[in-house]
Amino acid sequence: MMKVPKGTRDYKPEEEIVRQEVISIAVKHFKANGASPIATPVFEMRSLLQRNDQYGEETKLIYNLEDQGGEELSLRYDQTVPFARFLGMNRLSDFKRYQVATVYRRDQPSAAKGRYREFYQADYDFAGQSRLMLADSECMKIMDDIFRELNIGEFTNKFNHKVLLTGILEVCKVPADKFKTVCSSIDKLDKQPLAEVCAELVKVKNIPEEAVDSLKGFISLRTDNPEMPNGELLEALLAKAEGNENIIKGVEELRRLLKYCEGCHFGSRITFDPSLARGLDYYTGVIYETVITRWPFEAKDGKKKKSSKDDNVGSVAAGGRYDGLVKSISGYDVPCVGFSLGIERIFRLIERRNEALGIPPRRSDVDVFIIASASPDKLEDLEVPQMLLRYELQKVGLNTGYSCKPKLNIVRLFDRCEKDGVPLIVILGEEEYSRKMVKIRDVKARQDEEIALDDVLKKVLERLGR
Amino acid sequence: MMKVPKGTRDYKPEEEIVRQEVISIAVKHFKANGASPIATPVFEMRSLLQRNDQYGEETKLIYNLEDQGGEELSLRYDQTVPFARFLGMNRLSDFKRYQVATVYRRDQPSAAKGRYREFYQADYDFAGQSRLMLADSECMKIMDDIFRELNIGEFTNKFNHKVLLTGILEVCKVPADKFKTVCSSIDKLDKQPLAEVCAELVKVKNIPEEAVDSLKGFISLRTDNPEMPNGELLEALLAKAEGNENIIKGVEELRRLLKYCEGCHFGSRITFDPSLARGLDYYTGVIYETVITRWPFEAKDGKKKKSSKDDNVGSVAAGGRYDGLVKSISGYDVPCVGFSLGIERIFRLIERRNEALGIPPRRSDVDVFIIASASPDKLEDLEVPQMLLRYELQKVGLNTGYSCKPKLNIVRLFDRCEKDGVPLIVILGEEEYSRKMVKIRDVKARQDEEIALDDVLKKVLERLGR
Repeated sequence: MMKVPKGTRDYKPEEEIVRQEVISIAVKHFKANGASPIATPVFEMRSLLQRNDQYGEETKLIYNLEDQGGEELSLRYDQTVPFARFLGMNRLSDFKRYQVATVYRRDQPSAAKGRYREFYQADYDFAGQSRLMLADSECMKIMDDIFRELNIGEFTNKFNHKVLLTGILEVCKVPADKFKTVCSSIDKLDKQPLAEVCAELVKVKNIPEEAVDSLKGFISLRTDNPEMPNGELLEALLAKAEGNENIIKGVEELRRLLKYCEGCHFGSRITFDPSLARGLDYYTGVIYETVITRWPFEAKDGKKKKSSKDDNVGSVAAGGRYDGLVKSISGYDVPCVGFSLGIERIFRLIERRNEALGIPPRRSDVDVFIIASASPDKLEDLEVPQMLLRYELQKVGLNTGYSCKPKLNIVRLFDRCEKDGVPLIVILGEEEYSRKMVKIRDVKARQDEEIALDDVLKKVLERLGR
Repeated sequence: MMKVPKGTRDYKPEEEIVRQEVISIAVKHFKANGASPIATPVFEMRSLLQRNDQYGEETKLIYNLEDQGGEELSLRYDQTVPFARFLGMNRLSDFKRYQVATVYRRDQPSAAKGRYREFYQADYDFAGQSRLMLADSECMKIMDDIFRELNIGEFTNKFNHKVLLTGILEVCKVPADKFKTVCSSIDKLDKQPLAEVCAELVKVKNIPEEAVDSLKGFISLRTDNPEMPNGELLEALLAKAEGNENIIKGVEELRRLLKYCEGCHFGSRITFDPSLARGLDYYTGVIYETVITRWPFEAKDGKKKKSSKDDNVGSVAAGGRYDGLVKSISGYDVPCVGFSLGIERIFRLIERRNEALGIPPRRSDVDVFIIASASPDKLEDLEVPQMLLRYELQKVGLNTGYSCKPKLNIVRLFDRCEKDGVPLIVILGEEEYSRKMVKIRDVKARQDEEIALDDVLKKVLERLGR
């Protein structure tokens, strides 16, 4: 029996082509903002990854390598800890990097939800001191640019602030040693109703009812006021701050963030939400998460796809400021801010969009397919001319296809080109070739034209509109 | 102590940028020839990889994952076996694919020789029936195209044929059960003198002296006749064939291969060498290996770099026909031919070339760096204009840099741009900005010009020659 390991997948050409397009859009925007690429190994020293202070409960999901008489190694869980190690080893203090690579988690996989054990992430991070909110707002701008170009529905970038959240818990008199567990309950609000989360806080986590009641007043601010501008919501929250210094500091920083986002005209696609509480422990400042808010693509036949849990893809990108992580890992102190794109989820949405719009999958990027056609005993003589023609077209940057099958079924090749979306075919026929002519075929229109062999390059470029 | 695992490395930006350029050149030629991309997981079922018939002795170099209560998994050793699995699972019979990814070997690493335990390979393979030598010669053509574009010295593509080699061993009366071990001795000829290899055959491997003597006559044919055209060498070998059917069949196929290579005008960069005996057991037909034959790049100061073992990089690409592998793995019978580029070695050669030519390393692809310059209390007011200017430039495809450090040292930023090879700087000064003017600086010439803010985009594009 042949299979791939549980929770992993092969990318077939039609999938890999989409994935590479997503990556190239992300990389374009990373580079546009001056980021440099790095690459780190797929495994790290186990001692670097297996520390409870960075991944918490998730540590158990890390893949270990067998001890084969060498070092103890584990597969990377994310690209953030390797980046922190890289920064520490190279003592970098003003460095923007991007990295696109696979990460590994021994989680319960669910292909339907696009959740795998091996999956791609595209990360952007800035390491170094930043004037207040400058690098942070830049991250949100890049996320905005990427999702506008990806065209996978309306989206918003929800944001909050870890210090602000701490202030809220303080004001609500949540016991300090319960902050972490309360945050992880709040984090479920995108999947669970508020009442359930509050019940859990009281019954399972033993938070005093009064604390939960006042907490409710804060974390439901956005759902209670869905249309309120971010600035007003910030001020409404401040009005409930009772002079708490953490809330005051958080609001001040977020005001500045808003100013920059609005100054750059994407302020309408960001949403301040005081209930956003991203899981990972290492965040220290602004946190954010891009979510798709409206899915405008419907199948051509007008049928609406059955709504299912599968439709709720959750966040498609997330990140925040993590000022202490590098120091805790390497002893070298440099503040950081960044984000990570969930390539796999984005990729599924693009597939769904293309399906809805009737865009056929592409299996290759062939511009011109070349067929040599002759009686079996003469075919060999056409091989070199066919090759030379292909190489002539390749020289100007065209992608060429041909079949080297022993027996050619021309009708089948036509079909295949049609299915694969190849626009043009050039047919090098024995008889035509003897007259220095070839046929050129428009695949979609199913129309042939005889042209001079010498004109092929010119005609092909013309037909392709290049 | 922080470190990366033994035999692995981080790619810093100046390295990763070079690596990505190498990959993009390879991928361009793969696509030009109609190949489709696929991606397979970094680990496979251990039962797929740990079979002695495909990797032989090398099987012990495979990295295993710990059994953490799931399946038994191992990291891929190459991309060929995963491709064979992919073909079997998808029953493909006419499929060209390329894949660029890391592979893993617990070998003795040697950074000086560019030998790592995790390294990148770029593979091209064609699965399916091919008219005689058509797909094979295409592979050699693609290798030729790639190395011409890479510009890392003169090279040749050595080729031989597994069946021909078998015939030679038969004619020389090497005992049939010794074929494998004799081939692995012959394979050392690029590192060891012929006399040593022959001595090993007689003394260590107990091959009869007469057999080794006649073998010597065959495998030294190329070294004895370095300038002889491939076609003549083939005929010279045939003259010694004593009617052996395998030699006759091998020569016939290679004649056809030569015809196609010469027809496509790269016949002068291929070398028939009957002593080429590539290690892996699974090859069944043509085998080839690209080697750098002359290194024309010398340091500017005229000093020749000390010659060292390091200089001998061996082969930079290799491959061949493997018709039985997919069937032996999956039961599904499809013939294959392909090759693999040693990205790491190519990458080291490019670094050496650039060093010799005095080409400075690039750490980013920034076209324009933007500096906002104002007294500390006014800096905040320039942030939004600076952002808007950057985004305006990004919209036309330019990569922009800026610093968000709390205190800007402008002279230092000039230095950094010079070192990083950034061509232009735009300075948004407090006073100039109040007059709707900015300064534009040619980094290399160290010259500033004051221009109208509205003209920045136009001027920048002009200066960059876009």
